[in-house]
Formats: sequence, structure tokens, C-alpha cells
Amino acid sequence: MGSTEETVGSKDTREVIMEATFRALSEHGYSDLRMRDIGEEMELTRQVIHYHFDGKRDLMSSFLEYVAEQYEGAIDVEEYDDPRAELEARIEQCLFGPGFDEFGHWERMKVYHELFAHAQNDEEHQAILDEHYDAIKDSIVRVVEDGIEAGVFRDVDAERMGQFITDAIHVGRERRLSLGHDDAPEETQAAIEAFVLDSLYVDDESGPA
Amino acid sequence: MGSTEETVGSKDTREVIMEATFRALSEHGYSDLRMRDIGEEMELTRQVIHYHFDGKRDLMSSFLEYVAEQYEGAIDVEEYDDPRAELEARIEQCLFGPGFDEFGHWERMKVYHELFAHAQNDEEHQAILDEHYDAIKDSIVRVVEDGIEAGVFRDVDAERMGQFITDAIHVGRERRLSLGHDDAPEETQAAIEAFVLDSLYVDDESGPA
Repeated sequence: MGSTEETVGSKDTREVIMEATFRALSEHGYSDLRMRDIGEEMELTRQVIHYHFDGKRDLMSSFLEYVAEQYEGAIDVEEYDDPRAELEARIEQCLFGPGFDEFGHWERMKVYHELFAHAQNDEEHQAILDEHYDAIKDSIVRVVEDGIEAGVFRDVDAERMGQFITDAIHVGRERRLSLGHDDAPEETQAAIEAFVLDSLYVDDESGPA
Repeated sequence: MGSTEETVGSKDTREVIMEATFRALSEHGYSDLRMRDIGEEMELTRQVIHYHFDGKRDLMSSFLEYVAEQYEGAIDVEEYDDPRAELEARIEQCLFGPGFDEFGHWERMKVYHELFAHAQNDEEHQAILDEHYDAIKDSIVRVVEDGIEAGVFRDVDAERMGQFITDAIHVGRERRLSLGHDDAPEETQAAIEAFVLDSLYVDDESGPA
């Protein structure tokens, strides 16, 4: 170990540390995580971590930013002409993950949701998560606004609607992770369709009379 | 310390330990909690904890059951004749807490939501939380069924609707706690009313045309 240290640039080093952090968190969980667990998940010496980060909290802040960037980048869906199709695609990607296997959606979400709970006690982590959650929410609000403008969605409070759908996605994933309800994301998707989108869509014939 | 030990019965002892656990968790968070922190929050000797519980995980399992019982008991609303009024009362109680001040709703919810995230890594805690979450969900499903039967709610999938509302309540609280969105419970209540209840109620004139 340590011999590869000189051969990687600092961008690669960050990536290596972040991926090692991800594996260590998946294995040990946040509360039991020690810096040495991360060191054991990578080929670089543990000193590299201490050189780049000022302790566990600082490392975790960078890790949260890394996960958020990766997630937001990955769910950036292609441009749709149809706001309905785009809204449904975004809901599906947030619930089930973009590029499912390759992205390791649930492994990553497990870590994300654990850190989400910890943010109660950490203002810096809270600020990072808040910005991320807001970015996802804004992307949904924008589609709702597009749909209202195009006349295919009813004239609802787009901000409130985007927040509500983002929240529903969040808890659908969380219920799968924390309670072991494997069908929670599918159930959430069906509930959003039946109870929310159904009354959002202007000319949906299955809507309430 | 220790001198009061003989004077309390085992039921009181459990209560004393549980309330000390609650205070210690509020102060330190789950990951940093040590048994000694709980000992420092009570007048009994720390040995009493070790006598009753086989370590931190075992104590936490009992604590989860204690919190769940307390919560379920407290939100048991009076019998309503009107399913709409009962549904709205249940949503309000779950979001804002029954008897707000006295119950210390947010302090308790903070601990509850942190343990909820940890349940990812603990099957025993998961089972306890699952049972509790299900009890809350069932109480909402029942009201929805009552409303359908009474003809005041549309004929929706009551199970799916009850789950969706329970999930929305959960994440409304969580967003307040984890992201510091103080208005999240109020916003969630307004969103449930505007987007879900509005299309659930049969003769609501503000409903979609």
C-alpha cells in the first residue's frame, strides 16, 4: 500500500477516498464508522485521508456533496416535449435510481438516508442536504410549471406540488430501507399516480367526476 | 445516587430508565450515546440499567417500544361521527403531536426519526418500528374505509390511501427535523388537503371539475 499514492492526481485521490468512504459506510453504518475503516477500503495509505480532510465530520461533508452531485447529475433526464412524460420519468428515476445496477442506487440511498437522519445534529451537513433536496424539488416544480403553462396540468400551486411529490419519493425510498418494505417505491409510484397526478392532469378521463 | 433504588418498583424503574434514555438521546444523539450518559440522567445507580438490559441495543429495543406505545396511546383520538373530521384530526395529531407542550412532541420525534434511520442496520429495531408504523397506518386506513362506507369519500383503494397519508405525515416531520424546515408540517398538512383530501371527498365543491 502507499506505493500508488504518487501516481494519482488529486481529483482521482478524492474519487478514491469517496468511493472507499461509500464502501465503509455501507458496511459499518455512520455511527460505527472509524477513519481506519475507510483506510481499509482503499489502496492508498490512510495518511492521504488525514492530509485531505480534517476528521470524520469534514470527510462526511465532502462525501455528502459528492453523493449529491453524483445523484443530481445522474437523474438529469433528457428534455421531454410532454410535461407529463417528463414528470413521470423524474419520479421513476428518483424512486428507482438512474441506470439501476451500475449506479448501485439502493446502496447509495442507504448511506444517504442514514446521513439525512444525522443532519438533525449537524448544521453543516443539514445545509448540504438542504441544497440537494431543494435542487431535486426545483426540478419537479419546473416540470409542474411547464405543464400548467402548456395547459396540460391544472393550475395548482406548483411549489407546493413539487415539494409534496419530492417528499413522497423520499419517504417511499426510506420505507423500503428502514422498514424493509420492498414494494414501497412501487407502491409510492402507484399512489402518486392515483391520488396526485390523477387530479393534476387536465383531461385525464379516469379522474374524479 | 443509588439511595432511591429500593424505593421504586420495577414499573417505575423502567419508566425512570426510559425517560433518562430519552434525555440522553436528545442530548447526545444515537451514535455518540454511551450507557454512562444514560446513567448520568437519572438518580438510580447505573447498575440498575445493566441489571435490566443486556447492553445498548437491548435497551434501545425497549426504548423504541416505550416510545411507540406512548405515541400510539397519545394519538388515540376521540370517536368522531364524521369520517372527514376524524381523518383531519388524526393527520393533525400525527403531524403536530397530541398535547404539544406536555408531550414534548418534537423532542420525541427527533429521537424517533434518528432511530428510524438506524433501523436499516438492525432487524430487531426494524420489526418494532414496522409494527408501530403499521398501527398508525391502520388507524388511517380504517377512517378511510369508514368514509367510503358512509358515502362521504370516493371509492379509493383505502389501504393505498392510508399508507400514502401516513408516509406524507412521516416525511413532513422528518423534513422539519433533518432539514430545519420549520413550516414543513404545516406545508404537508396544506398539501394533503389540496392534493389528496380534495379528490377524496365526494362533494367537495373546490374539487376538480
